[in-house]
Amino acid sequence: MAGSTFGSQFRVTTWGESHGKGLGVVVDGCPAGLPLCEEDIQKLLDRRKPGGSKFATQRREGDVAEILSGVFEGKTTGTPIAMEVRNTDQRSRDYGGIKEIYRPGHADFTFDAKYGFRDYRGGGRSSGRETLGRVAAGAVALKVLEELGIFVRAYTKSIGPIALDPERFDLEEMWNNRLYMPDAAAAKEAESFLENVMAEKDSAGGVAECVIRGLPAGVGEPVFDKLDACLAKAVMSIGAVKAFEVGDGLAAAKAAGSANNDGFCLDGQGKAKKITNHAGGILGGISDGSAVVFRAAIKPTPSIALRQRSVTRDGKEKEIAIHGRHDPVIVPRAVVVVEAMAALTVLDLMLAGMGSRMEWLRRIYGKEY
Amino acid sequence: MAGSTFGSQFRVTTWGESHGKGLGVVVDGCPAGLPLCEEDIQKLLDRRKPGGSKFATQRREGDVAEILSGVFEGKTTGTPIAMEVRNTDQRSRDYGGIKEIYRPGHADFTFDAKYGFRDYRGGGRSSGRETLGRVAAGAVALKVLEELGIFVRAYTKSIGPIALDPERFDLEEMWNNRLYMPDAAAAKEAESFLENVMAEKDSAGGVAECVIRGLPAGVGEPVFDKLDACLAKAVMSIGAVKAFEVGDGLAAAKAAGSANNDGFCLDGQGKAKKITNHAGGILGGISDGSAVVFRAAIKPTPSIALRQRSVTRDGKEKEIAIHGRHDPVIVPRAVVVVEAMAALTVLDLMLAGMGSRMEWLRRIYGKEY
Amino acid sequence: MAGSTFGSQFRVTTWGESHGKGLGVVVDGCPAGLPLCEEDIQKLLDRRKPGGSKFATQRREGDVAEILSGVFEGKTTGTPIAMEVRNTDQRSRDYGGIKEIYRPGHADFTFDAKYGFRDYRGGGRSSGRETLGRVAAGAVALKVLEELGIFVRAYTKSIGPIALDPERFDLEEMWNNRLYMPDAAAAKEAESFLENVMAEKDSAGGVAECVIRGLPAGVGEPVFDKLDACLAKAVMSIGAVKAFEVGDGLAAAKAAGSANNDGFCLDGQGKAKKITNHAGGILGGISDGSAVVFRAAIKPTPSIALRQRSVTRDGKEKEIAIHGRHDPVIVPRAVVVVEAMAALTVLDLMLAGMGSRMEWLRRIYGKEY
Amino acid sequence: MAGSTFGSQFRVTTWGESHGKGLGVVVDGCPAGLPLCEEDIQKLLDRRKPGGSKFATQRREGDVAEILSGVFEGKTTGTPIAMEVRNTDQRSRDYGGIKEIYRPGHADFTFDAKYGFRDYRGGGRSSGRETLGRVAAGAVALKVLEELGIFVRAYTKSIGPIALDPERFDLEEMWNNRLYMPDAAAAKEAESFLENVMAEKDSAGGVAECVIRGLPAGVGEPVFDKLDACLAKAVMSIGAVKAFEVGDGLAAAKAAGSANNDGFCLDGQGKAKKITNHAGGILGGISDGSAVVFRAAIKPTPSIALRQRSVTRDGKEKEIAIHGRHDPVIVPRAVVVVEAMAALTVLDLMLAGMGSRMEWLRRIYGKEY
Repeated sequence: MAGSTFGSQFRVTTWGESHGKGLGVVVDGCPAGLPLCEEDIQKLLDRRKPGGSKFATQRREGDVAEILSGVFEGKTTGTPIAMEVRNTDQRSRDYGGIKEIYRPGHADFTFDAKYGFRDYRGGGRSSGRETLGRVAAGAVALKVLEELGIFVRAYTKSIGPIALDPERFDLEEMWNNRLYMPDAAAAKEAESFLENVMAEKDSAGGVAECVIRGLPAGVGEPVFDKLDACLAKAVMSIGAVKAFEVGDGLAAAKAAGSANNDGFCLDGQGKAKKITNHAGGILGGISDGSAVVFRAAIKPTPSIALRQRSVTRDGKEKEIAIHGRHDPVIVPRAVVVVEAMAALTVLDLMLAGMGSRMEWLRRIYGKEY
Repeated sequence: MAGSTFGSQFRVTTWGESHGKGLGVVVDGCPAGLPLCEEDIQKLLDRRKPGGSKFATQRREGDVAEILSGVFEGKTTGTPIAMEVRNTDQRSRDYGGIKEIYRPGHADFTFDAKYGFRDYRGGGRSSGRETLGRVAAGAVALKVLEELGIFVRAYTKSIGPIALDPERFDLEEMWNNRLYMPDAAAAKEAESFLENVMAEKDSAGGVAECVIRGLPAGVGEPVFDKLDACLAKAVMSIGAVKAFEVGDGLAAAKAAGSANNDGFCLDGQGKAKKITNHAGGILGGISDGSAVVFRAAIKPTPSIALRQRSVTRDGKEKEIAIHGRHDPVIVPRAVVVVEAMAALTVLDLMLAGMGSRMEWLRRIYGKEY
Repeated sequence: MAGSTFGSQFRVTTWGESHGKGLGVVVDGCPAGLPLCEEDIQKLLDRRKPGGSKFATQRREGDVAEILSGVFEGKTTGTPIAMEVRNTDQRSRDYGGIKEIYRPGHADFTFDAKYGFRDYRGGGRSSGRETLGRVAAGAVALKVLEELGIFVRAYTKSIGPIALDPERFDLEEMWNNRLYMPDAAAAKEAESFLENVMAEKDSAGGVAECVIRGLPAGVGEPVFDKLDACLAKAVMSIGAVKAFEVGDGLAAAKAAGSANNDGFCLDGQGKAKKITNHAGGILGGISDGSAVVFRAAIKPTPSIALRQRSVTRDGKEKEIAIHGRHDPVIVPRAVVVVEAMAALTVLDLMLAGMGSRMEWLRRIYGKEY
Repeated sequence: MAGSTFGSQFRVTTWGESHGKGLGVVVDGCPAGLPLCEEDIQKLLDRRKPGGSKFATQRREGDVAEILSGVFEGKTTGTPIAMEVRNTDQRSRDYGGIKEIYRPGHADFTFDAKYGFRDYRGGGRSSGRETLGRVAAGAVALKVLEELGIFVRAYTKSIGPIALDPERFDLEEMWNNRLYMPDAAAAKEAESFLENVMAEKDSAGGVAECVIRGLPAGVGEPVFDKLDACLAKAVMSIGAVKAFEVGDGLAAAKAAGSANNDGFCLDGQGKAKKITNHAGGILGGISDGSAVVFRAAIKPTPSIALRQRSVTRDGKEKEIAIHGRHDPVIVPRAVVVVEAMAALTVLDLMLAGMGSRMEWLRRIYGKEY
């Protein structure tokens, strides 16, 4: 299926390996006339960057995005926007261990099963670096959405057993800690927890949450391309995500219908408005005008320094302990990827839905407009 | 996006409304030479049927599938397989309530927001009857998979707070109770629970689980079209599903890396095999040869007889209580839909992956074969 | 590639075999709010019908279209429109000849090569009856276009060596003769020619021409999905079409640049307008506001009563003469199919192009609209 | 429709503008295990290069292709192959004329109509340089096909009124003249003709022909994705192509059925073989095992030094004469683009068709293989 393309109208194609010449993305279908510059991209890419955090890879990545096409005189032209990040560190290295042994929790074994061999350098295409292209494309989508008054924000909801306290929730607080957690106390607690995890040569997982505000009602297609279904695919396609929930999610399965249904009332302007939002902003796969809320459960980093059982390509059992710089937790760096994927999904569905009504075709193609 | 098509190689397009002339599906891309008859389809459709269960709509649906094309002399020809079910009960009725009031938990409001108006008869396109086409198509996909030694089975894992006990798990038991629950004791308990729910004019949700056995390693595309991502979309596209988990799912977010990673050992034939299956049979988005396991959390039936707050199309607040025959729980009837969607997803990815290796092209197109 | 679907936004999926239970189409992505009834479909289907013409199959087809979904209270709902025509004549018959011998000029041999066997009844899926679904879908697209002031008209330009004379061209005249030729004198001449062809047990080909008026400038995508490229695929996908030309077509290859270029002048309103239309209404793959003009060259009917050399499935040489009712020329019945495919192509590109500018997104999703 | 992607299985996405930072392509879906290096790409790109020909742009392009991903240790990995060519000459220039006036025969006017503004530097995205990405991708497809014994070759059939003589046809001769014409005498005559055209400040068109040998019977989908329909789209999507013909093409419209049908005989091995090839290797949209033959009619270069009437963006009539280095004819440089597009089309359909038979699925996924 040539699965490196996402979206049908706002179509994103990523390429690149962890330790190849570079990574990049082509965004096809971006509307013309959007102000866009490399700074818009870089800003988002930098949120993927480990920075000084001790819970993120110490390696100085310094990924610099270059826009190669599709932007002219500061605005998008409607033609493909190619963006790329060259890998600065490609020096030959000893990948011996990874090359021959299947790392538990990684895609080494399955790439071999699928393709017959693989680019083993740093995980190749299954590396977390693959998300660079997603984030660069997401930056463009986020900019389009912002112009339309739609805002997407993801943050860390929990790290291992430490979850934020809804009473203390403060969105701006996420910028004040290394974990992008909008609760200062929980962030501090999670940092301690992570130090212990690292001391034990182990790793942790967590949950990212994302909220989309300002999305008009009516976005999403009613059957297979439901907004929540498309978001689920987008988010589950991020490596390490093991579960997706919208609105009350799993808890809805235990609730009574009377508690789970969101009644309607009138807003100030005499329009229908949901009283509660258990549904997470989506009814029948279509946005209902309230905030869209979803979560992604992320597994612990598979690369750990503890010894694990494994086997080699040529069929010998062998233990492996993965040393080197690895984040003890993926969640904080995944947050911006979740945000990017959400933006790509919503924008793609908005573009696809522009022909939903005859009246809308007339607004674009009608003689009177 | 014209969202009534699922799949790219094994492409399924459904149509039809709850109370229109009928519902159906076109399956395009089915390999030629598969033995197929209407009985194969009917068998699966009957599992959607309420039957004598008191927890399912008493209305006698009696949906009968007709194959209209694509099968000749008992075998598929490789051309589109059109299947349809005519609605037997289309008599004019009083939909007054539904027509004007937005039912909480339903898609009435969002259809109006998207299209400007809607077919209000029994929910129209957002009715559960839309899944008839999915199940008919799924029956074809399941048959292809079975021919290749791949078996898909979904069942009820929990109803409200009552979950099956893994110690008592017995897959065959699912055929012995109305809830398709592979644990006789839990099923009995759940039935009592549902009677209470009904007495309270309320409804319940639950969790469906699905297991795919026999799937070879190597199925799924590494980036956006990961096997788990595609399954997530397929399953979240079923109305009422609010969460999707693969393998340990949400629990993985709280586990330590050392506990969550599945080590490798050798199987009897000297081949790599995972020791455990926390991953749910998928690594890096590609099947790893162990059983694929995932779950869908399903919300309580939104149609309840209790009074709820709502508003009318023309902007008046009004209470609504939904009478008539409605299942107090959707899960048992959704189980076969989950199974169908899983089969469609897996087969589509298998077809898409046939060109993954030059060696495989040679097997089909090479002169020596 | 599961090739029975056309279009990405206005997505049409056809099904059905010549002598199976029926043929049909699902149209997904039609905007909501279009007035539509079965009469709209039937009108176009009847133009495919042989009627009393002696140059068309005498068999009384009487194809009656039924709309099964997607229309409610006389308007499209935005959900899939399923339409079908049941075959009235399915009685078992002697297909012996066709079953075993590969008819020259037909797809018998290639279907066997691709699928391993085929539905040999009347050509199965490769029959001209497959176009029923195209025409029904085209009727919907034509209606959408008409609402936007865009008109598509195809007609017979030549039959064998007899071409219409541009000086005598009169579009309305096409309704007065059996060949849909907008030139009474040429039509008469062509009828005589065809009588001779029939007397010789042979067949003839010809050229269909199509003109699209009222299409605004700006439709079509600049690289692979050029308007002319998409029209070419649409038209070449009609069985028996062997060449496609846009504007001056083949003649452009012999012209000088100075003669082939269309200069610009100002129209009455001070807007740019092409002085000539050698380009056929398309520049760089995008409509330029003048009439879009293209032609399809159609081969002679392959079914002829003359004896031809052939071989059987099991590898024996054998002569074949095809008796029965076969049109001596396909062009007149293909004209409406060309019209349908043109409408499907143009509408699909118009829907896809709605997101070409930020300004257009604001018109649909902006708060001020 | 975000039209910069071609193909569904072997999916090619091009990007880049004539005078931007560069141009490139991402090839997704290439089978793993194909030997590939930059030399393979460069070889084909060099055929696009003007070289020393006086009939091609004198500008020294020196386009150098870089492979950025998807190839490891000399073989494709199955992941996206990104290739790019940096523009060496981006210095600021006076594009004043082009910026404000709509060049006749160019896409200036239609880009403005579609997007509201355009990158006017050297034609931007509508420049012939856009084909660099197509040719690079085509080089990969051609390599895959060659491994399977399938060979694609395009050449110049005619320039203006000078056509090659079938009696003198010698394929190898195409490498001996600047026009890629497999007939030395015709090439010489065409060169004289072009010198006259240049002296008159005018330009010429011509016809490219392409032959595909070794393609097995059974490639192509029977309805919308017919092999000839897909080739037509591929070829008509090349700028300046105004007509497409397969086999006898337009001539078939004038032929009698008895002359146009290709009878069958047995080949040496007792297999069915067509006696003639009027059909051009395709029956019912599916390859029939004989050589696939098609032609593209290419219009004269629109950039000419003669004065032409035009208008400016702000609505003033103004004459324009285009000076600078422009090829008097596009055909010789387009030949390799036709070859590339043919390869992309055929390979994509071959990959899509791998699931046509249950037997073929078993060859890949069956336990016994």
